[in-house]
Amino acid sequence: MNEFLKTDPWKLIEEKFDPARVKSSESLFALGNGVMGGRANFEEHYSGESLQGNYIGAIYYPDKTRVGWWKNGYPEYFAKVLNSAFWIGVDVKIDGEELDLARVKVKAFRREVDMRRSVLTRRMTVEMQNGAEVEVEAVRFLSLERREVGVIRYGVKPLNRKAVVTFSPYIDADVRNTDANYDEKFWEEVLTDGDAVQSRTKKSGFEVAWAQRVELEGASFECLTRPEKVMHRAEVEVEAGHSATLYKYTGICSSLNHEKGDLIAAARRVAEEGHAVGFDALLREQEEAWRKRWHSCDIMIEGDDESQQGIRFCIFMLLQTYTGVDTRLNIGPKGFTGEKYGGVTYWDTEAYCLSFYMATAGEQVARELLVYRYNQLDKAIENAAKLGFKDGAALYPMVTINGEECHNEWEITFEEIHRNGAIAYAILNYIRYTGDRHYLAEGGLEVLLSIARFWAQRITWSEARKKFVMLGVTGPNEYENNVNNNWYTSYIACWCLRYATESAAWVREHCPEEYRRICEKRHFDEKAETERWMYINDNMYFGEDKELGIFLQQDNYMDKEQVLVKDLDPRERPINQKWSWDRILRSCFIKQADVLQGIYLFQENFDVETIRRNFHFYEARTVHESSLSPCVHSILATRIGDMDKAYELYLRTSRLDLDDYNREVEEGCHVTSMAGSWMSVVEGFGGMRMKEGVLSFNPALPEEWRSLSFKVNYRGRVLTVKVSHEGLSVDNEGEPVEVELRGERLLLERHAEVK
Amino acid sequence: MNEFLKTDPWKLIEEKFDPARVKSSESLFALGNGVMGGRANFEEHYSGESLQGNYIGAIYYPDKTRVGWWKNGYPEYFAKVLNSAFWIGVDVKIDGEELDLARVKVKAFRREVDMRRSVLTRRMTVEMQNGAEVEVEAVRFLSLERREVGVIRYGVKPLNRKAVVTFSPYIDADVRNTDANYDEKFWEEVLTDGDAVQSRTKKSGFEVAWAQRVELEGASFECLTRPEKVMHRAEVEVEAGHSATLYKYTGICSSLNHEKGDLIAAARRVAEEGHAVGFDALLREQEEAWRKRWHSCDIMIEGDDESQQGIRFCIFMLLQTYTGVDTRLNIGPKGFTGEKYGGVTYWDTEAYCLSFYMATAGEQVARELLVYRYNQLDKAIENAAKLGFKDGAALYPMVTINGEECHNEWEITFEEIHRNGAIAYAILNYIRYTGDRHYLAEGGLEVLLSIARFWAQRITWSEARKKFVMLGVTGPNEYENNVNNNWYTSYIACWCLRYATESAAWVREHCPEEYRRICEKRHFDEKAETERWMYINDNMYFGEDKELGIFLQQDNYMDKEQVLVKDLDPRERPINQKWSWDRILRSCFIKQADVLQGIYLFQENFDVETIRRNFHFYEARTVHESSLSPCVHSILATRIGDMDKAYELYLRTSRLDLDDYNREVEEGCHVTSMAGSWMSVVEGFGGMRMKEGVLSFNPALPEEWRSLSFKVNYRGRVLTVKVSHEGLSVDNEGEPVEVELRGERLLLERHAEVK
Repeated sequence: MNEFLKTDPWKLIEEKFDPARVKSSESLFALGNGVMGGRANFEEHYSGESLQGNYIGAIYYPDKTRVGWWKNGYPEYFAKVLNSAFWIGVDVKIDGEELDLARVKVKAFRREVDMRRSVLTRRMTVEMQNGAEVEVEAVRFLSLERREVGVIRYGVKPLNRKAVVTFSPYIDADVRNTDANYDEKFWEEVLTDGDAVQSRTKKSGFEVAWAQRVELEGASFECLTRPEKVMHRAEVEVEAGHSATLYKYTGICSSLNHEKGDLIAAARRVAEEGHAVGFDALLREQEEAWRKRWHSCDIMIEGDDESQQGIRFCIFMLLQTYTGVDTRLNIGPKGFTGEKYGGVTYWDTEAYCLSFYMATAGEQVARELLVYRYNQLDKAIENAAKLGFKDGAALYPMVTINGEECHNEWEITFEEIHRNGAIAYAILNYIRYTGDRHYLAEGGLEVLLSIARFWAQRITWSEARKKFVMLGVTGPNEYENNVNNNWYTSYIACWCLRYATESAAWVREHCPEEYRRICEKRHFDEKAETERWMYINDNMYFGEDKELGIFLQQDNYMDKEQVLVKDLDPRERPINQKWSWDRILRSCFIKQADVLQGIYLFQENFDVETIRRNFHFYEARTVHESSLSPCVHSILATRIGDMDKAYELYLRTSRLDLDDYNREVEEGCHVTSMAGSWMSVVEGFGGMRMKEGVLSFNPALPEEWRSLSFKVNYRGRVLTVKVSHEGLSVDNEGEPVEVELRGERLLLERHAEVK
Repeated sequence: MNEFLKTDPWKLIEEKFDPARVKSSESLFALGNGVMGGRANFEEHYSGESLQGNYIGAIYYPDKTRVGWWKNGYPEYFAKVLNSAFWIGVDVKIDGEELDLARVKVKAFRREVDMRRSVLTRRMTVEMQNGAEVEVEAVRFLSLERREVGVIRYGVKPLNRKAVVTFSPYIDADVRNTDANYDEKFWEEVLTDGDAVQSRTKKSGFEVAWAQRVELEGASFECLTRPEKVMHRAEVEVEAGHSATLYKYTGICSSLNHEKGDLIAAARRVAEEGHAVGFDALLREQEEAWRKRWHSCDIMIEGDDESQQGIRFCIFMLLQTYTGVDTRLNIGPKGFTGEKYGGVTYWDTEAYCLSFYMATAGEQVARELLVYRYNQLDKAIENAAKLGFKDGAALYPMVTINGEECHNEWEITFEEIHRNGAIAYAILNYIRYTGDRHYLAEGGLEVLLSIARFWAQRITWSEARKKFVMLGVTGPNEYENNVNNNWYTSYIACWCLRYATESAAWVREHCPEEYRRICEKRHFDEKAETERWMYINDNMYFGEDKELGIFLQQDNYMDKEQVLVKDLDPRERPINQKWSWDRILRSCFIKQADVLQGIYLFQENFDVETIRRNFHFYEARTVHESSLSPCVHSILATRIGDMDKAYELYLRTSRLDLDDYNREVEEGCHVTSMAGSWMSVVEGFGGMRMKEGVLSFNPALPEEWRSLSFKVNYRGRVLTVKVSHEGLSVDNEGEPVEVELRGERLLLERHAEVK
């Protein structure tokens, strides 16, 4: 547990100032409104260690690839979401002395994020070197209702004497990424003019304008703006015990949504509107908008305050990161909380995040995530062609923002191809949950058949085995590379072949017009191609150890020295920090769910005993050094009734960042894995699954919890599921719907609650 | 065949000037004297494309590692032999106009290297833009007798009018490497003073001084020296048809051999001595020194001028690169001909070069190569410890100059561990050829037991197979990575275990004192350790395909789609340029001898039929995209009597650079693989092998050759072996010695020739 954070069901609170924790807290207290966000940097100048970060979704720079040894097929660049202008700046002086937390005495400090409304508040009392004691309250939020507005209220109250308070609110567009491959600056100035600045990203040519509208009662501002830096300054004399309060409304407009020539005007308009509405009204809007967001997704855990705070934090971060308003956006592994992983899209989106957004934000939001990949299909086909695949085969990138591959590590870029399976699976997942099968005709089938074509070429015939095999892959377990017949990858590949075949038949039957269009556009010869696909599917090799009754993660896995995680010296963990890469590769230790990832996705295909055997075997060898891992194991542990294990694993996932298990939260929060935490509550303890087209719940509560309740958005209704040790109830806010509770099907009436 | 180069038995000659070929010829005409060397850059200013290169063995810079994705265990730097001061500079003006081949009309051009004496001569006639026509002759060499001297004679003869000729001989120490990872300059100035400059390598702190002594009859020089650039200038008026001839003697002294404070004085002394001896006398010394070098290593091929030139070029380059005078030196893959591969040591030295130097330069030179590794043993132990190995296990680096690993590609650095086997094999090879078994007690055993310890940990027990296995390696075939049970690696590893065991017993028995010292120093428990080693050896898994009767390159190799090289579209070759890395990895194509490398090294263990089956299988799948490959295949082809194939493969190796098969000679020559060409002549066509302690010859001549004769230095004698289609004869210049000719043992008397 994190001794710095107070445990509170709805808030993140810290009550001490510790320079060593500044960067970690910047990550944890980060704000976002789905289209932009940023770290909880201080508004005023801070000369201590800090990682500035303000990010605008989908505004990226193609940073030239850095590589030790070039391999044919590597991409030319890595697209990164950029650190953009520091719009929150408010420098403050007290009697001429700069307020800088690294240089004053901090007598009291409290920072909180109210997760109910996404508002960051900081209150502190400091003693300046000149003897002045002041109280500061800074309140900041990014409007969810008006996605281009950021608001700050910054109040200073001298406590022990009258003081001259100088406010210099500014926007600094002269910023850099710390992760630039070649120490390049990614932005160049277009124009700085009075209260606004416009910048352009080099190469990619995105433009963004920022404008500030500032207000300070009883004072007027002088303009100190210079290239790339908008700045105003005002001074007021404040009596002891009285406050001077600055209001700052910032408009942030990008060329994604505006004409470049109109950007500064747009940003000014937005800032001006914010000012006209006023801080308090904007705050009320914010509260209302967030109330609506929480309505269909809250989770309540009774009897375990830390779990409660943990899961709300996960949901909150996911809501701040993505809202589904724009198909150009997606969910970076760190969301808007840091630069790491470049803010770009991984398979995390399909394998983890989709279920969360689908069941909380609704069908349309989930659909946007599918459309994002559909829009990038042609790039995925180009990507596969670059590697030598033909005839419209598609390989989706490991890492992307615009559909082009950015990653450059051969064992991942070229070999961690199971991502293609996750992208297909998301279509099944979406259709199964929403019933929107027509999506196949609109985009789904094109994606599926292109992915199936890839597998049909990537899988090859082994004359030696008289079976189809898949050679040279990296499974989800990245602690082994270039293995043969990774069970998970082969399993999901064969499933893709079957699902693409079924989907083609469905579209042919139900949407003949779209079917013709697709056949023509994709040169799809259904009969010949699907026959081949099914032939491969029917003759695919899958490794198993019959004696142990388990699926084999990869060929020769059993040749490794079989050591168990429990026998590892704790001082040697995490092994990815303590061991050479070589040693990791040769060990039997597994980074994250691999065979178990497949069993999780296709649970309906395996009986409980099979799941149990595989779980026991692989859990004992899994070090969970990916944040995406414990949640999957937790769900399966619940499935096999091992509630202690399920709970233990859940704790590792839900408070990973709050408790900073891996001592790396200063780089940003593990946003995508938070969706995994949500899954382990709703799909694990809540036991929610689609079973033959019916939403079913088969919950199991950890001993430690008194009760669990969660809300899901299901086909236009919000269902509230309550689980306690005494029983299960479901409340339906919408039209009647059939559900299955603990194996029993029943019709759930509107506003009825079934126990 | 290279249309630019004339075919000549002893010379490399080009007779045309083509700007597009300048860089290639700079590589081919490079000079070296074993301790330093450089590319055949022009002395005078050249504004066209060129790659300047002057290298001093063992003077390196630790260039910070460049990497895409860091892995634990990677080295911090890559040590590179540096491009050092451009000591050959002689700027020339004719009536005030600069002589620059890129800007004048070249009417005649002839450049040659006389391989008999390592002298570079360039003669040309040019027409200046100002109308003057001049003839130029530049002669240059690096003294083999005085290793710190470089000499230039530069003559200019106006042809059509009297002209003022200005010579500006200079040394430019302001130079860079083009392969710097971070565009850094690696040198910094210590002092420039009149006729000398001294520079220091950053970080590594080596210092080198260069001094020039110049002479031009009837003229005096003014000094134009400025920081990092020594320069003198003199003008003479020359009548048409007369010559002005500049002599330049350069002294090049490094802190490897001198006190840093004395370097400039030493360089001046060396230059001054050169001047005192004079150009002609130095040239005679050079001829005599090279005559001696050639005496014990020439190869004559009658009936095939291209092969003749090819093999002499190989021998010449090897002689220029390494002479065994200094254990800090070794043989970089490009020798002194280019920057690529950093001038550092690979397993090429032990697997290819050692045999050449041993049989041509003699025992002591070969021994220096062993001592080089012995001196780096403790670093190899550190290197293994970094990867998690214990108890004095040694892993020699893939790439090194001072014993520390420099390479940073996990699949090579950590996995291409067969290099450890080659380093052990070199000890066997040396002792077998020279009879110097006592080397085991001096250094060999320590190296062997430390390597055996590595294998004993790296090989692990597979409970599934009930055999020892070696997982996660890269064999010599770098077109597959992270494979299990690479036959070659496992074979050489087991051989190491046996040889270390035998060697320990031998030292214990014959050198008890050294044995005690070694046991103590290396904490060697012979009984326990060698029992374990032999247990592993006796229970090791080796893959084979019984049906095909071949050894399996690695587990699951037969799962790959079996395509043959002959069926590859020629437009897709070389595959390392035309295919994605991914596609290469998944294919069955083999970069270079792998199983066959093992069969080559341990030929005595395999009958001809086994060799034949393996040869046919693997040769059909080998693309020979490493210069180290065809020679090994050629030798085995001879062994199985497939002379057409042997000759075809030989042609690919011996003229690889002269004919620039891979269109990359401009980067430098493949110096280490030239030793492979020598092997394919001497060990292949000459059939030379050690058999039970006796030097044996079992030659087979390609149809295309009338005769072959080669010289080898064998235990203090020079033997000359002549092979023709009619017969075989051996001439012995030394003490009587037993040899085996075509299976028949006989005593070869001094100065006797046996037919």
